[in-house]
Amino acid sequence: MSDKPVQELPDHIAATTFAEFREAKPLVHCLTNEVVQTFTANVLLALGASPAMVVDESEATQFAAIAGAVLINIGTLYPARGEAMLAAITSATRAGKPWVLDPVAVGALDYRTAFARGLLSLKPAAIRGNASEIMALAGRDARGRGVDSADESLAALPAARDLAQQTGAVVAVTGAVDYVTDGTRDYAVSGGHPLMTRVVGTGCALSAVVAAFCASSSGPKGDRLAAVATACRTMARAGEHAVAASEGPGSFVPAFLDALYRMSATNGADGG
Amino acid sequence: MSDKPVQELPDHIAATTFAEFREAKPLVHCLTNEVVQTFTANVLLALGASPAMVVDESEATQFAAIAGAVLINIGTLYPARGEAMLAAITSATRAGKPWVLDPVAVGALDYRTAFARGLLSLKPAAIRGNASEIMALAGRDARGRGVDSADESLAALPAARDLAQQTGAVVAVTGAVDYVTDGTRDYAVSGGHPLMTRVVGTGCALSAVVAAFCASSSGPKGDRLAAVATACRTMARAGEHAVAASEGPGSFVPAFLDALYRMSATNGADGG
Amino acid sequence: MSDKPVQELPDHIAATTFAEFREAKPLVHCLTNEVVQTFTANVLLALGASPAMVVDESEATQFAAIAGAVLINIGTLYPARGEAMLAAITSATRAGKPWVLDPVAVGALDYRTAFARGLLSLKPAAIRGNASEIMALAGRDARGRGVDSADESLAALPAARDLAQQTGAVVAVTGAVDYVTDGTRDYAVSGGHPLMTRVVGTGCALSAVVAAFCASSSGPKGDRLAAVATACRTMARAGEHAVAASEGPGSFVPAFLDALYRMSATNGADGG
Repeated sequence: MSDKPVQELPDHIAATTFAEFREAKPLVHCLTNEVVQTFTANVLLALGASPAMVVDESEATQFAAIAGAVLINIGTLYPARGEAMLAAITSATRAGKPWVLDPVAVGALDYRTAFARGLLSLKPAAIRGNASEIMALAGRDARGRGVDSADESLAALPAARDLAQQTGAVVAVTGAVDYVTDGTRDYAVSGGHPLMTRVVGTGCALSAVVAAFCASSSGPKGDRLAAVATACRTMARAGEHAVAASEGPGSFVPAFLDALYRMSATNGADGG
Repeated sequence: MSDKPVQELPDHIAATTFAEFREAKPLVHCLTNEVVQTFTANVLLALGASPAMVVDESEATQFAAIAGAVLINIGTLYPARGEAMLAAITSATRAGKPWVLDPVAVGALDYRTAFARGLLSLKPAAIRGNASEIMALAGRDARGRGVDSADESLAALPAARDLAQQTGAVVAVTGAVDYVTDGTRDYAVSGGHPLMTRVVGTGCALSAVVAAFCASSSGPKGDRLAAVATACRTMARAGEHAVAASEGPGSFVPAFLDALYRMSATNGADGG
Repeated sequence: MSDKPVQELPDHIAATTFAEFREAKPLVHCLTNEVVQTFTANVLLALGASPAMVVDESEATQFAAIAGAVLINIGTLYPARGEAMLAAITSATRAGKPWVLDPVAVGALDYRTAFARGLLSLKPAAIRGNASEIMALAGRDARGRGVDSADESLAALPAARDLAQQTGAVVAVTGAVDYVTDGTRDYAVSGGHPLMTRVVGTGCALSAVVAAFCASSSGPKGDRLAAVATACRTMARAGEHAVAASEGPGSFVPAFLDALYRMSATNGADGG
């Protein structure tokens, strides 16, 4: 574990990165799990990005080259969908487009664990998971179901750095505090709210937003570390606004999408 | 392009058509994309219709003959689902039931474009798409991602008329203004709101509502052109009410379903 | 039909059962239909349970043994998903974990009817359906689409008792009044609201909650009849609170999830 505290993502970097994202309005090809597709699409739309869920293997090949980025989420993986994911990754890579991995429940289930580890050599631009997922993907022991405590995501930061160095990906370990690393530099993103863990898909949708920010920062001057951290911060800020405006996990969802929409319409990663 | 302005759907026709629909409470067999199934079902339920998503090929055959209409939406097409769609269309046709095509992203992706074109000879009762989808399906060049402007849907009206004449379908090109044609007569439906494009599934759910209205107008005296136009108008009016009652795309969704529910409970296509 | 009125689930039993459920925070493996996955997950999360939708056949085998209970809902059954369901049931049974059947539309469609009947010998812990589904599963004639009237669920109670005796399952026939039976003892659960039939997935989500309550009552002292009835009552009470706080089926959904969340945070099956 590091000896000095991890630097919080600076405001001015978040602001610049969000402005670039708003301008780019990226098109994100989402190969994600069955449970979160609607919410993921609505999160991207609220932010002004364009989601597209294209799932047939041949179409995934064709579309991944057109999209700004590809999201791979293995929450409800099965063989045919896995083939489409591999096709999309191959095509995105050939076209120079970034792809992002959300390794849902890696470490707990064998088939997806092998699948996700096999993807690491295909150079994801970013990986977003909770502490136990990132530790499992890095080949370390994770202990049980994550409690999403601040300590836990910090405890996984060394594994995240290793994973970043091994794969070239920016790695985000999310929890009560998110830690984002490229293996050398780290940012912390604090904020969000525990209520977000009582709504399905907040983490999965964050991974889609990470993909969208990777798309808009994929130019030669792009800072992918800042992009991934700004994605985390955008969702955390919207979550805080939404919790303040809601009475539970049900009313959280519309309030959260409204908050993202206001951010996209006005003042970016701190708006609401 | 036509020289004189297209006639707006008259109020009294919308009112009569909506009243027939309310009375019929049609059962709609939806073979639609993975992203919009929940919203589509809730839109139909809010309006008093009954959705059923039956997806196995043998069951699709059995159920399409029982349902009042079948919706075919190719947004997340893959081969097994495509087979179920063909089985449902064949069965519906044999039973004299209408089926409706939503050609999502036709023209942009090869597999679905070939699939959708192959369906045209199977006599859809209606086709609902945006300008670029309708132009692509009619075999004309569409230019890039649609901007959903009024001009764009009007520019696609000649293609829609051709498509209607070729296939026998009523064709709806939706956008800031919707144009509905049977190849000879046209209606315009104005209204709606751009916020609806920031919510996933509003177009897809409209296609399901089109199918529901085709079911309730499928008798010998039924006017399918009026039915499709009234479906468009119902969704546009509910959208306007919902935008007035909401603060963004998140709160739009519950407000929209509530508005549809009030319409179904009270005064029809103009209610709210 | 029984001669004396069915006893309403007593308050103190509901309170004790809900308290055990809250403590247990069960993990529920849901193999459910495509239309209701998000809502089902959000219902379980709002109540403090953990949903997991693991769908690959090999992973379903592995995960069903880890989860507290398995839900099998056949609303969008197709062969590959059916194989995963069988694998999950086999694995859960071997591990001594309960599994629950939601026989959506059984009786109306042949493939699922044969599939669901084949499952009955695999000893479901509970079965939850409407009157026509329970009657069809018990091998009796059901008449058409259910109207969900109180009389109808009461009329299906004898079939439910037979089914319970044949299979060893606790059987819940839900409608305007729910009847829950183990073949010998019965409980009635009144409450809920007809608006709940205008929102997709309320019945399917109830079946997931039944599975969660079966998990938390699966010890040697557990009373499965009370568990299933308390699940029904929890959803009915949350539904009443949500209807009072909403203006239609759209605003019902967030209000319903908020009501479940308040119950889980405070005073259980009567809270709100």
